[in-house]
Amino acid sequence: MNYRMIAYLSGVLVLIEAGFLLLPLLVAVIYGEQSGIWFLATILAAAAIGFLLVRLKPEKRDLYAKEGFVVTALAWIVISLIGAAPFSLSGQIPSYLDAVFEMVSGFTTTGSSIVPNVEELDNCMNFWRCLSHWLGGMGILVFMLAIVNLGGGQSNHLLRAESPGPSVSKMMPNMRKSSAVLYGIYILLTVILIVLLLLGGMSLFDSVCHAFGTAGTGGFGIKASSVGYYDSYYLQMVISVFMLLFGINFNVYFFLLMRKWSAAFRNTEVWTYLGIIACSTIVITLNILQIMPSAFDAFHHAFFAVNTIITTTGFATVDFNQWPELSRLILVLLMFVGACAGSTGGGIKVSRFVILTRATKAEVRKLLHPRSVRVMTIDGKQIPRETIQGVQGYLVVYLFIFVASVLLVSLDNFEMTTTVTAVAATLNNIGPGLNLVGPTGNFAMFSPLSKIVLSLDMLFGRLELFPMVILLMPSTWRKH
Amino acid sequence: MNYRMIAYLSGVLVLIEAGFLLLPLLVAVIYGEQSGIWFLATILAAAAIGFLLVRLKPEKRDLYAKEGFVVTALAWIVISLIGAAPFSLSGQIPSYLDAVFEMVSGFTTTGSSIVPNVEELDNCMNFWRCLSHWLGGMGILVFMLAIVNLGGGQSNHLLRAESPGPSVSKMMPNMRKSSAVLYGIYILLTVILIVLLLLGGMSLFDSVCHAFGTAGTGGFGIKASSVGYYDSYYLQMVISVFMLLFGINFNVYFFLLMRKWSAAFRNTEVWTYLGIIACSTIVITLNILQIMPSAFDAFHHAFFAVNTIITTTGFATVDFNQWPELSRLILVLLMFVGACAGSTGGGIKVSRFVILTRATKAEVRKLLHPRSVRVMTIDGKQIPRETIQGVQGYLVVYLFIFVASVLLVSLDNFEMTTTVTAVAATLNNIGPGLNLVGPTGNFAMFSPLSKIVLSLDMLFGRLELFPMVILLMPSTWRKH
Repeated sequence: MNYRMIAYLSGVLVLIEAGFLLLPLLVAVIYGEQSGIWFLATILAAAAIGFLLVRLKPEKRDLYAKEGFVVTALAWIVISLIGAAPFSLSGQIPSYLDAVFEMVSGFTTTGSSIVPNVEELDNCMNFWRCLSHWLGGMGILVFMLAIVNLGGGQSNHLLRAESPGPSVSKMMPNMRKSSAVLYGIYILLTVILIVLLLLGGMSLFDSVCHAFGTAGTGGFGIKASSVGYYDSYYLQMVISVFMLLFGINFNVYFFLLMRKWSAAFRNTEVWTYLGIIACSTIVITLNILQIMPSAFDAFHHAFFAVNTIITTTGFATVDFNQWPELSRLILVLLMFVGACAGSTGGGIKVSRFVILTRATKAEVRKLLHPRSVRVMTIDGKQIPRETIQGVQGYLVVYLFIFVASVLLVSLDNFEMTTTVTAVAATLNNIGPGLNLVGPTGNFAMFSPLSKIVLSLDMLFGRLELFPMVILLMPSTWRKH
Repeated sequence: MNYRMIAYLSGVLVLIEAGFLLLPLLVAVIYGEQSGIWFLATILAAAAIGFLLVRLKPEKRDLYAKEGFVVTALAWIVISLIGAAPFSLSGQIPSYLDAVFEMVSGFTTTGSSIVPNVEELDNCMNFWRCLSHWLGGMGILVFMLAIVNLGGGQSNHLLRAESPGPSVSKMMPNMRKSSAVLYGIYILLTVILIVLLLLGGMSLFDSVCHAFGTAGTGGFGIKASSVGYYDSYYLQMVISVFMLLFGINFNVYFFLLMRKWSAAFRNTEVWTYLGIIACSTIVITLNILQIMPSAFDAFHHAFFAVNTIITTTGFATVDFNQWPELSRLILVLLMFVGACAGSTGGGIKVSRFVILTRATKAEVRKLLHPRSVRVMTIDGKQIPRETIQGVQGYLVVYLFIFVASVLLVSLDNFEMTTTVTAVAATLNNIGPGLNLVGPTGNFAMFSPLSKIVLSLDMLFGRLELFPMVILLMPSTWRKH
């Protein structure tokens, strides 16, 4: 294990975080909030730690697959522990464990909150919560790779460990350029969203915060009633559509920018994703027709709820916890489906389901015609057997973590739907679940054990299991 | 598609069923119950249909894999439709749909009931319900294969389609002998159980009925409070231990009879199964310690509940629906685990989880050491890649059916735990679920649509998905 390289990279990330902490400090200065002093203190401490770690110049810059996973997992834990400091030091979230939960929820773009009323937090605190969504959405390591030049092999391992989806398709031969292009698209879409929200009459502060939460598919609100606070079809629909857009594989936007139309439009995963959204919206609209003032309202809120859940954002316009069981169940299922690979969304990812479905069809065909041989393809490309096995292995590890978490959280003895959807909402980085953790509830009532389990679940989910699994495996730390 | 051969085999099965219907008729005669007349009517009708079908002598006796699946699925539907007649004709279960649900629940060894109070049924009716468990447990096609001589290839397809577990290991070179040995062991264990129950003071009728339900891992009770009616630690413990025994792979008993000790004791699946039972019992015992009169009671009822659920039997001593969430969740998880392959139990089967776990470990190892090659083994034998792919395909189809069923049943708008555990309890052939379908509840309140969905789920579960999937696939019936 190349410990010095791991320490060095962590140092770089802590320095980057210190840089981003200047933004909430600025917000505190603008609004004259005294709690801003704790951002300054955290920046100074982080900068000191960062410089110390960076001075440990590694002799070898080699990074093997295992170390790539370990760096990624460690980095996310370290930035969460540091980022939580201002909440706790300022007393706005008195318990440090609660503050860490909130910060992990921010960086992992989950959006589950332990704050009973977010409107009581200072603006600088709410800004930092929302900014963490934006940073975590595209990935803080991806950001580092866009500005720091590592060798090709090293950055490949890091990008693979942090990026969502079964396989990273290379946009550019150079990793640094790929990362920069990704962030470029991300910033562009975010700015467009801010402008559209401003045009709808939302204040600048609120627009920026909601754009951060939407772009990262995070979902922290800054109002007690989330997006329901803005009683405007226009504003809600803009957020709804942009959640959908941020759930699409960013390769598609890249191809659109390059004017490679056929590559952009020939994407099974995106069409499947849009198909699922359309079907779910129609069924839920029909299911809630009677409890809504009008058919348009039913459609509007169904479309918003489907987008907020499938993209794993977690904003809410209405309390979908009160909807009939069919609608509630569809939303629970969408929690697991998740968004497209290569987007900022979480969940298991549509592409994994596409691959599984095709592999299973081939299996059934084989039962009937044992001697037939067929090649599986998606978008005209052959799917290697390793990819299919990887997806199936992924699902088994996922189920194991899900079940273990549900059992541990059930020790708190809340009823089953609360327990199960709390785990589903954190492991899939969504935010709200149903019943006690529904859109109008929060996660404050859980025991410290459950809060730790759910925090780990958020990290498992955002990093797609394996970095965390490998970090926690004893064999990783054994000397060979 | 060899329609004449399909018709011929169905005819043989209907004749066999007519033969077994003589037993409840005998019970009716003994107890002087007038409803017995409807068994006589059903026997005559079944015999007539059977003889007509058997006279359609097939020109070719070939049976391809596809036809093996179709025959199996059709046979189970036909015998359920016929077996339901006496309930409905006698008016003891007025609705024919309800009677079919009850009969499917019997043959598939599920044990979910739509009868509000089983003590109001005539003895001949209860006897038929329990006998159907016993027939369905080992498989009615297996029974046919034990007495009718088909060619080797044909019976192989049928046995594979009806037998539980990822692969049928051949006990004997001859299928007819294998089937006969299986039934021999089954009858022997059932007789021992009857004797032990009689020794505990249970009446002959009750002993036989409970032995049928235990042997088939069915779980239909003949008392409103199930096995809780017999206020005897001895009787409850005998049933508890025999449920466990009938959940073990019958190959083990075969090897024991052959005195092949090492083959009998070197069985990863059975040890895993026993390990899961031990761990679950310990955790639940500790979890319910405070709500039980004594530590022994806590252990006794925890052990019974674990066995009744993991073997998918479904008897109850106490209302485990009232237990704390951790215990309830463990029981829900055990519903999916199920018993050993090659036993009479249902569920996904322990061996599938063993195979999945090993395949996943190999996957994680590959992430860390991309160039390593390892061979996966269980019990010293190499697992072919096709078996692993088959198991993974199985799980995907399973999940798809599970999700589709939950959505359809949720239209009835019962709360989530009821809906989800109703599907889990039927698809895994257990019987009771939680909340409204808990041990003290029943399935009478569901809509006709839900009853049809749940009946199909029982058949999907008992026949391990593929025979039913292939029966229902349009492409099966298309001309080639």
